[in-house]
Amino acid sequence: MEEWGKRTWNLFSKIRTESPLIQCITNFVSMDLMANTLLSAGASPAMVHSVEEIPDFTPRVSALCVNLGTLSPDSLSAMITAAQICSELGIPWVLDPVAVSASSFRFDACVRLLGFKPTVIRGNASEIIALSSSSKSSSAKGADSTHDSMDAVEAAKLLARTSGAIVAVSGATDIVTDGNQVVGAHNGVALMQKVTATGCSVTALIAAFLALDKTHALDAAVSALAVFGVAGELGMKMAKGPASLRMHLIDALYGLDEATLLSHVNITSLS
Amino acid sequence: MEEWGKRTWNLFSKIRTESPLIQCITNFVSMDLMANTLLSAGASPAMVHSVEEIPDFTPRVSALCVNLGTLSPDSLSAMITAAQICSELGIPWVLDPVAVSASSFRFDACVRLLGFKPTVIRGNASEIIALSSSSKSSSAKGADSTHDSMDAVEAAKLLARTSGAIVAVSGATDIVTDGNQVVGAHNGVALMQKVTATGCSVTALIAAFLALDKTHALDAAVSALAVFGVAGELGMKMAKGPASLRMHLIDALYGLDEATLLSHVNITSLS
Amino acid sequence: MEEWGKRTWNLFSKIRTESPLIQCITNFVSMDLMANTLLSAGASPAMVHSVEEIPDFTPRVSALCVNLGTLSPDSLSAMITAAQICSELGIPWVLDPVAVSASSFRFDACVRLLGFKPTVIRGNASEIIALSSSSKSSSAKGADSTHDSMDAVEAAKLLARTSGAIVAVSGATDIVTDGNQVVGAHNGVALMQKVTATGCSVTALIAAFLALDKTHALDAAVSALAVFGVAGELGMKMAKGPASLRMHLIDALYGLDEATLLSHVNITSLS
Repeated sequence: MEEWGKRTWNLFSKIRTESPLIQCITNFVSMDLMANTLLSAGASPAMVHSVEEIPDFTPRVSALCVNLGTLSPDSLSAMITAAQICSELGIPWVLDPVAVSASSFRFDACVRLLGFKPTVIRGNASEIIALSSSSKSSSAKGADSTHDSMDAVEAAKLLARTSGAIVAVSGATDIVTDGNQVVGAHNGVALMQKVTATGCSVTALIAAFLALDKTHALDAAVSALAVFGVAGELGMKMAKGPASLRMHLIDALYGLDEATLLSHVNITSLS
Repeated sequence: MEEWGKRTWNLFSKIRTESPLIQCITNFVSMDLMANTLLSAGASPAMVHSVEEIPDFTPRVSALCVNLGTLSPDSLSAMITAAQICSELGIPWVLDPVAVSASSFRFDACVRLLGFKPTVIRGNASEIIALSSSSKSSSAKGADSTHDSMDAVEAAKLLARTSGAIVAVSGATDIVTDGNQVVGAHNGVALMQKVTATGCSVTALIAAFLALDKTHALDAAVSALAVFGVAGELGMKMAKGPASLRMHLIDALYGLDEATLLSHVNITSLS
Repeated sequence: MEEWGKRTWNLFSKIRTESPLIQCITNFVSMDLMANTLLSAGASPAMVHSVEEIPDFTPRVSALCVNLGTLSPDSLSAMITAAQICSELGIPWVLDPVAVSASSFRFDACVRLLGFKPTVIRGNASEIIALSSSSKSSSAKGADSTHDSMDAVEAAKLLARTSGAIVAVSGATDIVTDGNQVVGAHNGVALMQKVTATGCSVTALIAAFLALDKTHALDAAVSALAVFGVAGELGMKMAKGPASLRMHLIDALYGLDEATLLSHVNITSLS
């Protein structure tokens, strides 16, 4: 446990000192919270999403976050162009397959993006199960999960093996796997699911952690999930509902110090 | 009064237990608050707005919210496609004709959408007057009303009769009519008008209420307006300005219990 | 100092009484905070951004705010069309060259927009230096500045002279110049840089101030920067981090009275 705490703190404090530039091609609902999450963690967000700008811009970023929330043909072109650049240049990138079962268009877009080898894939249980089985039929049609994360362990391992990515599944316990090792990040509170874009924002935070150490992508993903979860727990102490939780979570992320992080981090091996 | 209170509570508590999937094709300003309003009320929001996804996705939703705030040719195509599916499949849908007088393009878009028989139309007084008179000239050019809701009662009744929709007019008193009956929902506080997207968000909440009982669309619209207004009143007790009102309103919506709702709901017949 | 305070208060109180209609063609990250900033200050925001609507709508607005944050070919067309209308009709407009060095596409877009004679240009030091030197190479690639505002004084004066615009540079001290006179607006707190869209929002506030007196654009820009900075200082007294600062800043802007403004405004001549 302490080892995970130290590792998490070391990565997190490096974000604050190095302020990595993180490009987000993301949905319109999450942009505000995602940018504020990255700023509060110490990173520098850039929501550059035009295919005209990506050949100039993406080669300079430290990591990329791709989120399918409000997908369109234009944003898909931008995602593909940016993912390809990252793949070629060795820049780490994270895929968030929001509501992958919403349509064939979206499912096929996800499959296409998998071809550019994301470093990490983060979704909820329903999304990871759907993407893993390569089946377009899932009980969850919107962005909310109808499965618990523990239901998705085998699906996550399979997806990690077939895609070559680290796979993270959000839930009461966040699951992270490279296809063999399975780690559980137990921080966070249930009310975070009633705040839109918390899932999207933690995916962006994973990108910020990856920016500092792409060779240990599992550690980066676990650490980001733990830090965001701890911020949620701290925020929850002052929250009176989802909107004040959102505010206090960001404040807590900004103010998080080593002793508080170490005393709260709860990461365990599940395999 | 008590009858309205019970009816409102019954519908509201069903949203929490059934968590209906609500599709929103809406403007970029309101997406965040709208999604958080729906989540806090217990519904499951989905901001799917691509014409490529709508034939797959819209048939599965429980209700649709269409909002013209930041209209473009692409979003108009999506709105028309989704409205047509809802009309054909009997899925309830709500039209929010934001700033209908801003341009001919927008006015004509509204008229075209009326052809797909929205279940409910909600706007401010200036918007409903403009849409009712089918005249493109109105004193309000932006999204803010220059009329009081009571000025729009006759316009609302006319629009209800010609469109076949329930028409709701937001204002100091919210007016709801089917063309004959006129009901007033008196909850809410004036400062809500200084919080962007509160109008858009209550339209989405109407969609969530409609999802549970589309055969009583007037009741659903009145109930949604009352619940949102009560949340505003509760939030106002702790607010120090528009931004804290926004936060406390959402917290209050999430935590609203039966006794508090019943003691605050203020709905009267005006005809 | 007292003269500046009175001037600032006079302009600000006119926004509250006249509620000017301000069109914003802006990035998707900032729309929410920008609209709430304008509403809290007393203005009426309208995020109309479709080229189909601009010929009808823009001639009626009191001022225009153009922000390049999430530029696309479509939004650029809208910006050019609206800027041209403002230029022809004498409607004041403000340009925010967000992340101008992110790509050639963006840099060229800025240069093209300069041709329509913005009344005010507001950026951070890195953006103003890049735009002034007409060089696409700058150390800042994202939206965050890598320079202090004082480093940009000469660049701002040069840009003001070549463009004919008032140029404002945000930073620890905000700098405003017409190419000869240089004024410093010293209000504000450093934590505002950790809240996304504060820079975008003060640009929109400059547009609201300009709407009331376009013949004194330097005064309008200085006043808007001072008012927003004072709101930040007031908000900071209650803030526990960036998210609560954002909320308290907007509340403070809404509630700002003459005595508080006069006792806080800190504007000096720097030339």
